Amino acid sequence: MRKKILISEVGPRDGLQSIDPVLPTAVKQAWIAAEAAAGVTEIEVGSFVPAKLLPQLADTAEIVAFARTIPGLTVAALVPNAKGAAAAIAAGAHKITLPLSVSETHSLANLRRTHEQVIAEAGQIASLIAELPVERRPHFEGSLSTVFGCTLEGAIPEAQIARLTEALMAAGCDEIGLADTTGYADPAAVKQIVKLVRGVAGDAAVTGIHLHNTRGLGLANVLAGLEVGLTTFDSSLGGLGGCPFAPGASGNIVTEDLVFMLEAMGLDTGIDLPKLLEVRKILAEALPDEPLYGFTPDAGLPLGFVPAKARNEIELETAE
Amino acid sequence: MRKKILISEVGPRDGLQSIDPVLPTAVKQAWIAAEAAAGVTEIEVGSFVPAKLLPQLADTAEIVAFARTIPGLTVAALVPNAKGAAAAIAAGAHKITLPLSVSETHSLANLRRTHEQVIAEAGQIASLIAELPVERRPHFEGSLSTVFGCTLEGAIPEAQIARLTEALMAAGCDEIGLADTTGYADPAAVKQIVKLVRGVAGDAAVTGIHLHNTRGLGLANVLAGLEVGLTTFDSSLGGLGGCPFAPGASGNIVTEDLVFMLEAMGLDTGIDLPKLLEVRKILAEALPDEPLYGFTPDAGLPLGFVPAKARNEIELETAE
Repeated sequence: MRKKILISEVGPRDGLQSIDPVLPTAVKQAWIAAEAAAGVTEIEVGSFVPAKLLPQLADTAEIVAFARTIPGLTVAALVPNAKGAAAAIAAGAHKITLPLSVSETHSLANLRRTHEQVIAEAGQIASLIAELPVERRPHFEGSLSTVFGCTLEGAIPEAQIARLTEALMAAGCDEIGLADTTGYADPAAVKQIVKLVRGVAGDAAVTGIHLHNTRGLGLANVLAGLEVGLTTFDSSLGGLGGCPFAPGASGNIVTEDLVFMLEAMGLDTGIDLPKLLEVRKILAEALPDEPLYGFTPDAGLPLGFVPAKARNEIELETAE
Repeated sequence: MRKKILISEVGPRDGLQSIDPVLPTAVKQAWIAAEAAAGVTEIEVGSFVPAKLLPQLADTAEIVAFARTIPGLTVAALVPNAKGAAAAIAAGAHKITLPLSVSETHSLANLRRTHEQVIAEAGQIASLIAELPVERRPHFEGSLSTVFGCTLEGAIPEAQIARLTEALMAAGCDEIGLADTTGYADPAAVKQIVKLVRGVAGDAAVTGIHLHNTRGLGLANVLAGLEVGLTTFDSSLGGLGGCPFAPGASGNIVTEDLVFMLEAMGLDTGIDLPKLLEVRKILAEALPDEPLYGFTPDAGLPLGFVPAKARNEIELETAE
């Protein structure tokens, strides 16, 4: 059977936090339900930050509770600290991600916390999780943001990345994520950083990456990640919230183009691409002033396009 | 030293033939001169087709003559047939490319010629070249267009691609190019088709690829090409003429983003990226109504970005 790749949709968190309009809770729910129905099995539905900082995500607890009712869906949430993690756990998130900016300048500017303080929060989160019954424990990811370089510091020394990886694992993270916060990554850097971080955390603890398309290299970087065995890729439907022309824009890679590439390569995302393309309508209608990105939605699928699932079926029939 | 990669700028041909405005000869010359000054060493400057079909390229002979005066520049031209090749040779093109659409439906629709007729033209072109003194012979490329699939026929059988490759080589081509005319390519297909065509033509005869970004996979496909040892990539400054939102648009990959990716990976394009970014101004001024594409021009270069040439110098100094 074809290799399975996990797409982690981050639009409801990373996309919505990057735009001004506040999407009504009911629309978020419709979006999440529609993507899950199209075959998306992991969605980062929000962030547990104070509502006054990100009013767009003020209903995250409610959204987590809703998303948990969808069978087979892994409900992920971002948390800035242990307080946020406690709220995420109370709401029932399956996966929580704590970002740690490997650039301390960026960490201070963004989270107003030193590396030491963020590592301490990671330890507290791990303690909170350890107190839970095993079946209620969320998966805990420490995500190395600005790991491919920082707009304030430039390239980050490899020794510093290694040290912070080690500290997060020692604090109790299950997994180390890599995030190209600034869109500085290139395919060679992806391979190099994955190797570096795996050397510290172990191969099994480094499976996913969060890439941006700021300089157009998003999907090339995905390919590099695939080639070193990464199996989880973050992306945002319609590239929501990402605009390379606006300062501070996130520029997430576009879920539709990512799924097209993987399926065209014969990798099994489990996602029904025509159904996924339909989900854009929910965003286009609810956010008429926000541009939606992606090439595949406009170009359409190639004539005679065969998704991975159908290839499996053809191969099974041929084998019989 | 770092591996050298050749960027073949096709904007003056593929870009300009896809837009309505006719760029004045003097502006084309300024564009070509500026790109060459930025370090671009191969430019496809036009196409030898009847002026009534493509008035945008009516001055191709004059442009070839001008481009030949630029030291170190390989001057390439597209030709649809032997008549065009004779004109290209008379003008002094260093490289001539004859496209052969592996989809016969597409070949008939576009060039009004069967496969057999195009192969016959290839043979006539090879004869024309053979009659020249050795030092005046242009490099002759047969380019397999729609090789990754056709909007009219879908996927093209591998046996047909192999047969046409063999026929072009037998007719006297020096090299076989691959062209993703329809934007159907994906990284797995790039590797597969390169392998297939090399199996017929030999490794040395398959070094370059012409990719489009129709579905956003252009640079990922470049990476796949790099990994199987391709060393020449076509692209268009500002992605001129390519718009995924317009039917029939070419959607060439953007030279600026391509150069950024390669240089970031430490591959040596010989191109000065800040200088290349300046060349966009010529197009923006002369074609104010044509959108220019590319992510890197808007995002800028990463803080502390080190191009391949500077890395070489740093390594040489360290070695001394």
